[in-house]
Amino acid sequence: MNSFGRLFKVSLFGESHGKGVGIVIDGCPPGIRISEDDFEKDLSRRRSGAKGTTPRKEADKPVILSGIYNGYTTGSPIAIIFENNNTRSRDYDFVNKPRPGHADFVAHRKFKGFEDPRGGGHFSGRLTVNLVAAGVIAKKILGDVEINARILEVGGSKDIEKTIEEALKSGDSVGGLLECRVKGLPVGLGEPFFDSVEALLSHAVFSIPAIKAIEFGSGFQAAKMRGSEHNDDFINENGETETNYAAGINGGITNGNEIVFRIAVKPTSSISKPQNTFNFETGKREELQVKGRHDACIALRVPPVLEAVTAIVLADLLLLNNAR
Amino acid sequence: MNSFGRLFKVSLFGESHGKGVGIVIDGCPPGIRISEDDFEKDLSRRRSGAKGTTPRKEADKPVILSGIYNGYTTGSPIAIIFENNNTRSRDYDFVNKPRPGHADFVAHRKFKGFEDPRGGGHFSGRLTVNLVAAGVIAKKILGDVEINARILEVGGSKDIEKTIEEALKSGDSVGGLLECRVKGLPVGLGEPFFDSVEALLSHAVFSIPAIKAIEFGSGFQAAKMRGSEHNDDFINENGETETNYAAGINGGITNGNEIVFRIAVKPTSSISKPQNTFNFETGKREELQVKGRHDACIALRVPPVLEAVTAIVLADLLLLNNAR
Amino acid sequence: MNSFGRLFKVSLFGESHGKGVGIVIDGCPPGIRISEDDFEKDLSRRRSGAKGTTPRKEADKPVILSGIYNGYTTGSPIAIIFENNNTRSRDYDFVNKPRPGHADFVAHRKFKGFEDPRGGGHFSGRLTVNLVAAGVIAKKILGDVEINARILEVGGSKDIEKTIEEALKSGDSVGGLLECRVKGLPVGLGEPFFDSVEALLSHAVFSIPAIKAIEFGSGFQAAKMRGSEHNDDFINENGETETNYAAGINGGITNGNEIVFRIAVKPTSSISKPQNTFNFETGKREELQVKGRHDACIALRVPPVLEAVTAIVLADLLLLNNAR
Amino acid sequence: MNSFGRLFKVSLFGESHGKGVGIVIDGCPPGIRISEDDFEKDLSRRRSGAKGTTPRKEADKPVILSGIYNGYTTGSPIAIIFENNNTRSRDYDFVNKPRPGHADFVAHRKFKGFEDPRGGGHFSGRLTVNLVAAGVIAKKILGDVEINARILEVGGSKDIEKTIEEALKSGDSVGGLLECRVKGLPVGLGEPFFDSVEALLSHAVFSIPAIKAIEFGSGFQAAKMRGSEHNDDFINENGETETNYAAGINGGITNGNEIVFRIAVKPTSSISKPQNTFNFETGKREELQVKGRHDACIALRVPPVLEAVTAIVLADLLLLNNAR
Repeated sequence: MNSFGRLFKVSLFGESHGKGVGIVIDGCPPGIRISEDDFEKDLSRRRSGAKGTTPRKEADKPVILSGIYNGYTTGSPIAIIFENNNTRSRDYDFVNKPRPGHADFVAHRKFKGFEDPRGGGHFSGRLTVNLVAAGVIAKKILGDVEINARILEVGGSKDIEKTIEEALKSGDSVGGLLECRVKGLPVGLGEPFFDSVEALLSHAVFSIPAIKAIEFGSGFQAAKMRGSEHNDDFINENGETETNYAAGINGGITNGNEIVFRIAVKPTSSISKPQNTFNFETGKREELQVKGRHDACIALRVPPVLEAVTAIVLADLLLLNNAR
Repeated sequence: MNSFGRLFKVSLFGESHGKGVGIVIDGCPPGIRISEDDFEKDLSRRRSGAKGTTPRKEADKPVILSGIYNGYTTGSPIAIIFENNNTRSRDYDFVNKPRPGHADFVAHRKFKGFEDPRGGGHFSGRLTVNLVAAGVIAKKILGDVEINARILEVGGSKDIEKTIEEALKSGDSVGGLLECRVKGLPVGLGEPFFDSVEALLSHAVFSIPAIKAIEFGSGFQAAKMRGSEHNDDFINENGETETNYAAGINGGITNGNEIVFRIAVKPTSSISKPQNTFNFETGKREELQVKGRHDACIALRVPPVLEAVTAIVLADLLLLNNAR
Repeated sequence: MNSFGRLFKVSLFGESHGKGVGIVIDGCPPGIRISEDDFEKDLSRRRSGAKGTTPRKEADKPVILSGIYNGYTTGSPIAIIFENNNTRSRDYDFVNKPRPGHADFVAHRKFKGFEDPRGGGHFSGRLTVNLVAAGVIAKKILGDVEINARILEVGGSKDIEKTIEEALKSGDSVGGLLECRVKGLPVGLGEPFFDSVEALLSHAVFSIPAIKAIEFGSGFQAAKMRGSEHNDDFINENGETETNYAAGINGGITNGNEIVFRIAVKPTSSISKPQNTFNFETGKREELQVKGRHDACIALRVPPVLEAVTAIVLADLLLLNNAR
Repeated sequence: MNSFGRLFKVSLFGESHGKGVGIVIDGCPPGIRISEDDFEKDLSRRRSGAKGTTPRKEADKPVILSGIYNGYTTGSPIAIIFENNNTRSRDYDFVNKPRPGHADFVAHRKFKGFEDPRGGGHFSGRLTVNLVAAGVIAKKILGDVEINARILEVGGSKDIEKTIEEALKSGDSVGGLLECRVKGLPVGLGEPFFDSVEALLSHAVFSIPAIKAIEFGSGFQAAKMRGSEHNDDFINENGETETNYAAGINGGITNGNEIVFRIAVKPTSSISKPQNTFNFETGKREELQVKGRHDACIALRVPPVLEAVTAIVLADLLLLNNAR
């Protein structure tokens, strides 16, 4: 349920306002050079701080409990934890007045009232710090493969800073559009049907909170196209194609061309603007004002997380491909 | 690799022009009433025959090898096979001149020349007949839950017949846009992170050949929206919401509202219009004319397959929910 | 539930007196030469016919539905079925008077009366024919590795023929002791803890009906030994050891020495001698006489099945080892 | 590789002399009352201290990082870690002179020299503390089910203290024989073939280091028995049987009678007595004296570990049974 991957396998745990969050990475080959510093670049890209991100600041210092010895992976499971320090639990109590767009209501029902409700508990975006950490290791396995995610638009506009500023002013939040590109993959990763590259990537991507859509290459545009236009002609013996509507994937398997996909991130559900909800105690609809510290645009923090889950999927497929 | 599901688990096999294709369904509870007739409705919706679908006609008669006794599931694995009768293999040989948009090139590389190339082999859309069969059983497990998939557009137009006719005339093909809606699910299906409803549904959906995109509820539009607009207000004690941008899912878990998602199907890669490819024998680009029988719009046949994979995912999550 | 393996993955289906039994093998590398004849040797070793085995004779002709093309594995799932021809269902009806030692009682309870009761249904030893078929392919993956299982004793005696004859005369059955040896494995197969070689082999071995015990190398004798005696001294740079109490496995991982293990097979539960059972309809204990065709010593047919599951486990571990 | 279980799923990590060891338990139902004190009883049974156990003393205080809130499980993953405090790494360096009976040699080969060699690294029996912790939670899921493991013999003798004393005096170690009994299980747990109760229990049991053999009920004795003797007659409507050679399991499924199995634990590989090994640096056989702190009889510490893995398997099967 909280695990993913066949050979490079990650298992998440933790809650937003508990002792900490963490991840266990099993199946990482031995002999990969890793230091705690290697994590800093991607972790800091994810960290809050920029305008539009939450004022909650966590050091996000990875504590490596196992699986790395003398600076190299040992082949045993790598456990990494991040302590929670900057928690202010009194900001939150939405068990009876669930925040619209949040998991408060479903968590309370699914877990029969035993969920940890503080700061979204196990549903918190805080847990994506773990994905970033696993992604750092996955990227090392992938070697020269380049994975780049970037923001294309925020709130429907390319003027990102201005859009954020407006959202902040009005106590509101905005969504975002991202693109991820992967260069340098060999031909042949992925499996027909259930382990197609698109199936696994979308599975991993929708494991990131707040994602609403994904499209590969031509994406939704493909629905409007003709075959003569959409078919990518092969132009040389490496399988390079003239166009790349297929996004580097045929029949679920990498064809050596660039993988390209786009995702939509919804606007942060937590907003300071007053909104309505249902009070399950009184049985009445009433106004809700969510205090606390929020991201005005969570999409700003998604690129390193998106790269990370992409790397996790591709590292697994690369190892799987080696097996044969 | 060709299996999917944790408790309701399906395993696919078969090739387009081999003896047949089939599926093994493990984990189906005992006591579900099933006859071979139950399969006919969804199988006939998927079958070719309408204008725009391939003239290859298969009887698609399911042969149930195991797991059903006296008209009820026994609790043991259900194996279903579909014989291939209407195969004309001489139509196909694309090992050295791979068809653009098809898996010919990647299959040849991945499987080192040992792939069955006839009619796309294991990559053929023919295998989706198995998914439909498993979906019939999954729908029975779901009881009163209603799953409906329908075509919204073909080639960018709502005038489906006309668009298909034009594509056929020009020896070309067109893509399509579909929507799937699920009513009647309980609150609480799905798991945070890796087994979120969106993660599992998208995984299953991208296991269907030719899918390029998926969006849940607000989908790509969410990227342009504000939180105050996107948040669905709860309006009563059942968790019903005023709007449904969340598509019935919060934090990866069903909230009792309708699940809604849309997918894009690319135009069929096989077209009779001449196109270019690379000849791996001569090392030169050359023209390719793909004879044989094609669907001008494979999207027409996708609705029952889409319902089937949706049912497979939800039946698994329902059983998983029972476990606790 | 009916699947096993991580990369070389088998899925069983079928019932004793249904249309047939079968297996799907996923993850087999492409390019392995296989003909239907290759199965004959091990299938015939398992087949009944010798004194002490059931007079029910099945042709056991494997029908390969998929995954093999032009005499080689394609890399796609291999589905193999065996039709049931020689079934005489009237011999059996033990729903209300469960046969001691059989699964009649538990199947009826577990599957709420919907189980296929004919000939043991899905619980039948008939399904081991599938394991043998998968084992034939697994052995090919293992190449020069030699796997040999043989009977050491039957009914506590080395005079196998005589013991069987006596059992037959008295309408009774006898158990047996088997040994399996594996030569030629590389160092390094297996994983610490949950995927130790012993853990996976024992898992697979206890999936064969009628097995009651397994011991590796020193086995139960180890409980009586001292460390100075039990420790196998390394004697050269290949890791060869002077003794082999460890059975070729240290810390769950192959050390390059021979794997050796022994198993106990219980006496066939079906005997023609009258015995007692409980009648669930009348609520009274009463005598039961099991007609039909039985093996007086099922152990005689186990060696190829034991080799097969051993090969399945080791082929999976070999592929897994290649991944890194 | 370091994970086990389908619904109640455990993932191990850690090394003997690293920062700590730990376990993540996913799939535990919400609402189970757990305090850190609940772990003490079983952890102290496993802890060293008695004559014959290693003088290395670890506090074994479980630190619960996640999944428990206000004294109850939340339904989210439970992560538990145990810090390593009492490590004396200079005692150990066996990379080039591998200790007989240990994993030094195979770990070095398998992990290409990158393994953490200190104190056996990830192969250490220290990791079984995690299993005990998970077992405490599994036992709570099982409610009134009673699981009891006890030592039957040590070094072939029932006079345990005397045997240990002699072993200590001679710088040697001894093996042991254990029995585990489980009362109170419902009829119907387990699945035919690959998830039979015996298959899963033996898988889990052989995941404990130093186990060499397992037998259920009649065990190896079954090989010598006749069917008329071995078949357990049903005597009442609950499925109780007169004898219990089947060990409470028919066809891989619990029949409601007591589960009984025995295991053999080899003598601790670490002994202070001089022994021989191969020096991979010099290419010569030479004497080895293993200093450090050892258990003279590791079997003494196995009972709570054996109960724990038994509980882990049965809790998983109980949840799985609920699903249908």
